[in-house]
Amino acid sequence: MADLRSFEPGRRVNEQLLVVELDQRSYGEGRDCIILTFGNADGRIASAPFWSERRSAVAGLSRGDPVEVTGEIRMYRARRQLEVWSIRALPREQVEWARLLPSVGDVEPYWRHLDGWRGAIAAPRLRQVLAVFYEDPEFRARFTACPASIAGHHAQLGGLLRHTYEVALIARAIAEVSRADRDLVTAGALLHDIGKLESYTWRTGFAVTDAGSLLGHVVIALLKVARGAERVAGLTEREQLILQHLVASHHGRLELGAPVTPMTLEAEILHFADDASAKSASMADALADAENFVGDDLVSVRALWQLDRRRAYRGVSDWGTADTRK
Amino acid sequence: MADLRSFEPGRRVNEQLLVVELDQRSYGEGRDCIILTFGNADGRIASAPFWSERRSAVAGLSRGDPVEVTGEIRMYRARRQLEVWSIRALPREQVEWARLLPSVGDVEPYWRHLDGWRGAIAAPRLRQVLAVFYEDPEFRARFTACPASIAGHHAQLGGLLRHTYEVALIARAIAEVSRADRDLVTAGALLHDIGKLESYTWRTGFAVTDAGSLLGHVVIALLKVARGAERVAGLTEREQLILQHLVASHHGRLELGAPVTPMTLEAEILHFADDASAKSASMADALADAENFVGDDLVSVRALWQLDRRRAYRGVSDWGTADTRK
Amino acid sequence: MADLRSFEPGRRVNEQLLVVELDQRSYGEGRDCIILTFGNADGRIASAPFWSERRSAVAGLSRGDPVEVTGEIRMYRARRQLEVWSIRALPREQVEWARLLPSVGDVEPYWRHLDGWRGAIAAPRLRQVLAVFYEDPEFRARFTACPASIAGHHAQLGGLLRHTYEVALIARAIAEVSRADRDLVTAGALLHDIGKLESYTWRTGFAVTDAGSLLGHVVIALLKVARGAERVAGLTEREQLILQHLVASHHGRLELGAPVTPMTLEAEILHFADDASAKSASMADALADAENFVGDDLVSVRALWQLDRRRAYRGVSDWGTADTRK
Amino acid sequence: MADLRSFEPGRRVNEQLLVVELDQRSYGEGRDCIILTFGNADGRIASAPFWSERRSAVAGLSRGDPVEVTGEIRMYRARRQLEVWSIRALPREQVEWARLLPSVGDVEPYWRHLDGWRGAIAAPRLRQVLAVFYEDPEFRARFTACPASIAGHHAQLGGLLRHTYEVALIARAIAEVSRADRDLVTAGALLHDIGKLESYTWRTGFAVTDAGSLLGHVVIALLKVARGAERVAGLTEREQLILQHLVASHHGRLELGAPVTPMTLEAEILHFADDASAKSASMADALADAENFVGDDLVSVRALWQLDRRRAYRGVSDWGTADTRK
Amino acid sequence: MADLRSFEPGRRVNEQLLVVELDQRSYGEGRDCIILTFGNADGRIASAPFWSERRSAVAGLSRGDPVEVTGEIRMYRARRQLEVWSIRALPREQVEWARLLPSVGDVEPYWRHLDGWRGAIAAPRLRQVLAVFYEDPEFRARFTACPASIAGHHAQLGGLLRHTYEVALIARAIAEVSRADRDLVTAGALLHDIGKLESYTWRTGFAVTDAGSLLGHVVIALLKVARGAERVAGLTEREQLILQHLVASHHGRLELGAPVTPMTLEAEILHFADDASAKSASMADALADAENFVGDDLVSVRALWQLDRRRAYRGVSDWGTADTRK
Amino acid sequence: MADLRSFEPGRRVNEQLLVVELDQRSYGEGRDCIILTFGNADGRIASAPFWSERRSAVAGLSRGDPVEVTGEIRMYRARRQLEVWSIRALPREQVEWARLLPSVGDVEPYWRHLDGWRGAIAAPRLRQVLAVFYEDPEFRARFTACPASIAGHHAQLGGLLRHTYEVALIARAIAEVSRADRDLVTAGALLHDIGKLESYTWRTGFAVTDAGSLLGHVVIALLKVARGAERVAGLTEREQLILQHLVASHHGRLELGAPVTPMTLEAEILHFADDASAKSASMADALADAENFVGDDLVSVRALWQLDRRRAYRGVSDWGTADTRK
Repeated sequence: MADLRSFEPGRRVNEQLLVVELDQRSYGEGRDCIILTFGNADGRIASAPFWSERRSAVAGLSRGDPVEVTGEIRMYRARRQLEVWSIRALPREQVEWARLLPSVGDVEPYWRHLDGWRGAIAAPRLRQVLAVFYEDPEFRARFTACPASIAGHHAQLGGLLRHTYEVALIARAIAEVSRADRDLVTAGALLHDIGKLESYTWRTGFAVTDAGSLLGHVVIALLKVARGAERVAGLTEREQLILQHLVASHHGRLELGAPVTPMTLEAEILHFADDASAKSASMADALADAENFVGDDLVSVRALWQLDRRRAYRGVSDWGTADTRK
Repeated sequence: MADLRSFEPGRRVNEQLLVVELDQRSYGEGRDCIILTFGNADGRIASAPFWSERRSAVAGLSRGDPVEVTGEIRMYRARRQLEVWSIRALPREQVEWARLLPSVGDVEPYWRHLDGWRGAIAAPRLRQVLAVFYEDPEFRARFTACPASIAGHHAQLGGLLRHTYEVALIARAIAEVSRADRDLVTAGALLHDIGKLESYTWRTGFAVTDAGSLLGHVVIALLKVARGAERVAGLTEREQLILQHLVASHHGRLELGAPVTPMTLEAEILHFADDASAKSASMADALADAENFVGDDLVSVRALWQLDRRRAYRGVSDWGTADTRK
Repeated sequence: MADLRSFEPGRRVNEQLLVVELDQRSYGEGRDCIILTFGNADGRIASAPFWSERRSAVAGLSRGDPVEVTGEIRMYRARRQLEVWSIRALPREQVEWARLLPSVGDVEPYWRHLDGWRGAIAAPRLRQVLAVFYEDPEFRARFTACPASIAGHHAQLGGLLRHTYEVALIARAIAEVSRADRDLVTAGALLHDIGKLESYTWRTGFAVTDAGSLLGHVVIALLKVARGAERVAGLTEREQLILQHLVASHHGRLELGAPVTPMTLEAEILHFADDASAKSASMADALADAENFVGDDLVSVRALWQLDRRRAYRGVSDWGTADTRK
Repeated sequence: MADLRSFEPGRRVNEQLLVVELDQRSYGEGRDCIILTFGNADGRIASAPFWSERRSAVAGLSRGDPVEVTGEIRMYRARRQLEVWSIRALPREQVEWARLLPSVGDVEPYWRHLDGWRGAIAAPRLRQVLAVFYEDPEFRARFTACPASIAGHHAQLGGLLRHTYEVALIARAIAEVSRADRDLVTAGALLHDIGKLESYTWRTGFAVTDAGSLLGHVVIALLKVARGAERVAGLTEREQLILQHLVASHHGRLELGAPVTPMTLEAEILHFADDASAKSASMADALADAENFVGDDLVSVRALWQLDRRRAYRGVSDWGTADTRK
Repeated sequence: MADLRSFEPGRRVNEQLLVVELDQRSYGEGRDCIILTFGNADGRIASAPFWSERRSAVAGLSRGDPVEVTGEIRMYRARRQLEVWSIRALPREQVEWARLLPSVGDVEPYWRHLDGWRGAIAAPRLRQVLAVFYEDPEFRARFTACPASIAGHHAQLGGLLRHTYEVALIARAIAEVSRADRDLVTAGALLHDIGKLESYTWRTGFAVTDAGSLLGHVVIALLKVARGAERVAGLTEREQLILQHLVASHHGRLELGAPVTPMTLEAEILHFADDASAKSASMADALADAENFVGDDLVSVRALWQLDRRRAYRGVSDWGTADTRK
Repeated sequence: MADLRSFEPGRRVNEQLLVVELDQRSYGEGRDCIILTFGNADGRIASAPFWSERRSAVAGLSRGDPVEVTGEIRMYRARRQLEVWSIRALPREQVEWARLLPSVGDVEPYWRHLDGWRGAIAAPRLRQVLAVFYEDPEFRARFTACPASIAGHHAQLGGLLRHTYEVALIARAIAEVSRADRDLVTAGALLHDIGKLESYTWRTGFAVTDAGSLLGHVVIALLKVARGAERVAGLTEREQLILQHLVASHHGRLELGAPVTPMTLEAEILHFADDASAKSASMADALADAENFVGDDLVSVRALWQLDRRRAYRGVSDWGTADTRK
């Protein structure tokens, strides 16, 4: 796999890439061009413009199409471009999708933690409810790939899995210092976002499904848990309510899309762990994105929408550590 | 049935009543009393105080108990009281509950309208989804009694039925002047609040169930519709989404407990019809309640919580009609 | 009249049109052009660019000018353009304005309903207050044309009339299921937005007057009703207050520009009917506008400002109707 | 006049007083009492309880009744009470009302300032608009007495006059440092609250009129200014709009009841001056009210509603002034 | 130490207690009484009323006074009371305060964790800033006792220490799954609430100081950190800013009293950890307080202010664990 | 000094100017240009585009650089441009900065008022606290230049000084009509914004410092006042609190960045005076900016962000003054 942004100008390229954006620009009197943005798992790069005479080269391509591109990296106004010599659409079934979309990388550690915590749950019916989902191969297959959002926090292949791991780890820490049931908190973490498996698609870029728009991932998860609960013998009505409430209230406040607000200690903890995972990921992403900063400025050049219109500060210090090593 | 508030002082009473409130008051040095509030379908009345020597008469009674009372109406400081001569708890199964709780009265007209509108729906699968619920005798039995809230709008036996009728009638009027699908709007009206059947109990006064607290009536309705949909052959996924969205979005705004906001014309209309029925009922109730006004004042004595802290004005005019009749 | 968007490429055009937008674009080094957007009652179409050498053809034209255009429809990048061969400004007094602005079409049905409901009001002084306005030919002339907003709901010639009809019809339905005075609700519907007659102009496109900006249509309506009330003999102070309150409170909440919030049942109903008409019209418009959707997507491509940043869903179903006809 | 709270215990009292509150309290078994709160221009004092045997003494009295009281000051649980020996209702027309209600005291200085500023306005039509109101003896008579609120800031006889003076003085100071038209700002100050003259009554305690409830003082002022404007020859439509806008926008924000928000510099200034006068008066009142503080505490014992739930701090210092005088 | 609420009726008591409340009640005609609420580290209990003849026994006592009480537990209307036979004020210096106020109990584990994490920080100047405070014996003495709030979360002796430990533990867990500097997060946790040491007093019950009211604990902490920073040689301006920002932004949002919002990853994490500790403690407290529930109800009887008006649910399940042990 | 916007086309220019913006524009196929915006104390003007062949002329220039420009004014599409013949960067130390940035002009009158009011304060320690700052030459030097914001109200050299003068004058007027300590109000006005001296830089255009971003000017002022207070012998803790509270609460509400809200009369007044100065300056600026209005329109063409999304109205009248002079 290749991070095109790190290629030297002049380097030749022959890669499978995703068409992430497709931007027509007109400069009047018939002079207009098309610029494509290509992406793969490692990042994005813009094409040099396709002028009128070469527009046929990209005819028929759409956002989300996988392509094979041959060309060369060149510099234009201090930014890298990919000058395209040839480009052809790939049949979708021939594509290694994992190489075309941003990804959290190796998902095994996340599965190991989640399965480990799950395995340590002693209470039979709690265990069984989780098993309905987490021992279903199709569920695992989708979970391995599903992003946690399409353009916000953990918007990566495997992002939902990583987010679920983070939420569980944080929630268990909060449970440790409060008087909460750690196994129940863990179960809540493992179930809270499973509605996203049907709310998003990730095959051709990340998108929201119609069900995701019309019902939202909270409601979809509630419907899934209800169906799953039917498969656990002896699950009491109260137990179903406790689990459903964890899912239903995890957004914490009505105005954030929770149909009800947390009424149990475990639900309260789950909400905070979810928020902490999402918001600290957004802040880390914002700080890591050089586009947000100008020159040597330590404060971001603009209020960032993913941080609720806040700015970010990237100043750091070693607090004298280097001095002591001298 | 009897509206105790209209009885003349001195009139003897022998009635089945509900214990609505049970208020202990202490005046120090061992002098304390208990005052009961009795209710039936027509209204409420306070008892004269049970002083220490007579407290045994009410020992063991709880809020929500049905009782048989013998006594007499008397005036105390310009208000009627019920002086109790004898009181005994009734076995719950011997009680005519319909006489003890406020009620919308005859529910047949509401059923007639709802069944009529439902019957006029031509589209097969829309018809069938409604039939799953509306032709189930148990559903009808519960719907005939269920209140639409426990202390707000339509907090009466049959209140949910009346509210559903009102919502459907208003929604159909809005549909008439917009470009909406009237049958779909009707279906939304008939399904939107069916979660209340499991959110409330009404046997011993009105109360919220645990499920009603932990999930809310919107989520419960979504779970019911999902189960009902399984019984309609050929119902497409899109059709399920359209119906579920009507239910999920009917509170209109996230901060009012809608997990999603209306995205279709029919959902938008359903939300407004629901709000109009609820709020105009609250305003009508507030204006009808003499307790809200002092003397001849036309403006209510206080900001009313059921009107979002507004005051109400009860001034009316005949706009000269009487003059023209002279 | 002609919907230019439906014309075949190559078709010759000779039409009276309105200059709706006038957009100068520069491409550097003196190469710049002007693109006009023309509109008529049926829709809008952009011109081909007027390059430097032809800019004199459009010199002196301003937004809102009526013009006569000769030219030809052609396709440019999958959209129709109007290539202009000749264009000349028309004297304002020669223009058939009704053909140049979007319109609700035939207004007679709306007048018929409104006058019918008004005629059925028995109460003398309520009747007379409405007659002061609704039997004044100038009032009717303005009302026949005035839009209900300049860029939101019912932004059409006759839009205010249509909106008033919708509000009255919905309000009367709500009144039917509550305990409201239907005639008073009707009067409120007929008076609530008459301030818009002086808040908007519609001769040369839709615009807000200085009075509309500085006072708002609610205050203007209150001043109009106060003056009108002086012409109804015997109208009591209380009657004036009741009517003025209907107008003053119809926006429902202070933050929406209501100087007071509804305190009567009729005012409450009027507010909901107004909102239902406005919001369902906005939703219907959003769904009908193909610009809001991309390709076959059922969910709108962006959050729509006229729906308070919501998205719209245009999926429909016949619920099996077609199957049954087979 | 007499501040009853400063009387020595044992002192005999013979005063005209207002019945401000009338509180029935029951202690069970027929033992109940009535406690009256009396008020005059200087303050309030509670009566000793009227027990059953003496309740006839206060029969027929209502809130707002003027009475003549003979009695004696005594201490009860560290607070003064007025033990009533005899009490009789006074015919309303015999009462010196100014002695019974809280008052700003001598209003002449306020009139002098307002008339002085008004007299210094050179622009003819601006002068004349103000003269329509400020040279009308009935207007002056009402303005001399009207409070600025019934229980908030400047809730005193003459309170509106004092508030108007404060607003004008502050607004003129703000105008001095901005680029505003000082005469227009002054006119806005003099007109902004004249709707309160019909929104409140002050004869028998302070109360809101039906018009004050149903329309609010902003709308009433707008109707008054519109009528007044008809009496100024040559007043242009623009001039009327400018004046009406000052009145309509003076609450500054929609959620505070302004139908429109300030669009001119003078309207912006008027809003801030109005707010500054009202809020600083509320803060000063809160600090002066010993009831808000416990013992030697410097911070008020509770969040104060008139300060939007803030607490007040009454600590002061002479910053060493006393030391320098030694 | 003794939890008086668990004493059997009839049991004799001889304890040092704190006067937590002192409530005068009047029942008219000179009959009034005083009821004291006593508290110690384990809970609270009300006294039987002190009637007129015995009021001298409590003369001179104030809220917050430590007393020695002899008496007997008795039942009154299903609640325990403490009938007082003798009571005397204790000199403040003779009191074992730790026994009179609610407490987190043994604070050593919290110190051990905090000092351990602090000791593991390698960066010299970060270490030193913490040492300025955490190696100051007076600081430690106050920190050992200070509550984290006066009536909300961790309102106990040692509550601030426990809260600081919880925040640090949670923040370190969040740091583990994000890309944060764990030592800096720890430093932020240890410094964020040190302003509470001067914002609260805890000697005679918990109260807010004048500085706590007028500046708030965030500002006080900023002033402390600024002074402390002067004592660390070589601390750069940037390092001071990073630390101060952690303190200044820890409330997360302006409307919660943060003068600035988090701009660094560590500040974001600190805010979430602080919130999670505070809110989960409040939820746990609410669930543990039997007063919040009626009878066997699983849902709390009222919306709880400390949970932002939410209700709590105390239903639990063993999820079948008991069955498997059979 | 020269207002370039008033120069006649064809006029030759030779000026020191600031590079305020530097805008690269691309028109495809290698044709791109750079347009500079120059500014000085009197206004701004755009350059003609620097096309490819002349881009070397501006190579190395950055936003904020002072330059010497020779060229000629010309008209392009109805706007003035500066065609640049030669341009060279100036060493920063050779620049007369006061000529390059917008400025309030002569600051002496502001100093005279502030020093006069300060001199009239009798209370020794209040005087001395102010002297710590206002008699420090470096403080005065910075204060003479510092803007009050970087892009909002008083965004000019000397803007903070002018704003401080305005706040003091307005606050003293409010104090005059309330019961406030005028000297303390004056002290609050003089100290409230001194944190801006370290929050902004103004040498190369106006910018926010890292400290300004991370702590905000309120906290910086609190730290400065705390340090300054150490230099006033005998200043009591209460006096420090009163002063610090004035600074800490001057934004009035938490959501506007005040860590605490006003609790004293003087703090309340300071808040209103600060707001009145800032908002009336913004309104005056908006009305003076011809860019906000189109043609002869009296209402601004768009909602203005500096007025919280309001529009402005620039209509004026002489109210008949001209007529009387005839």
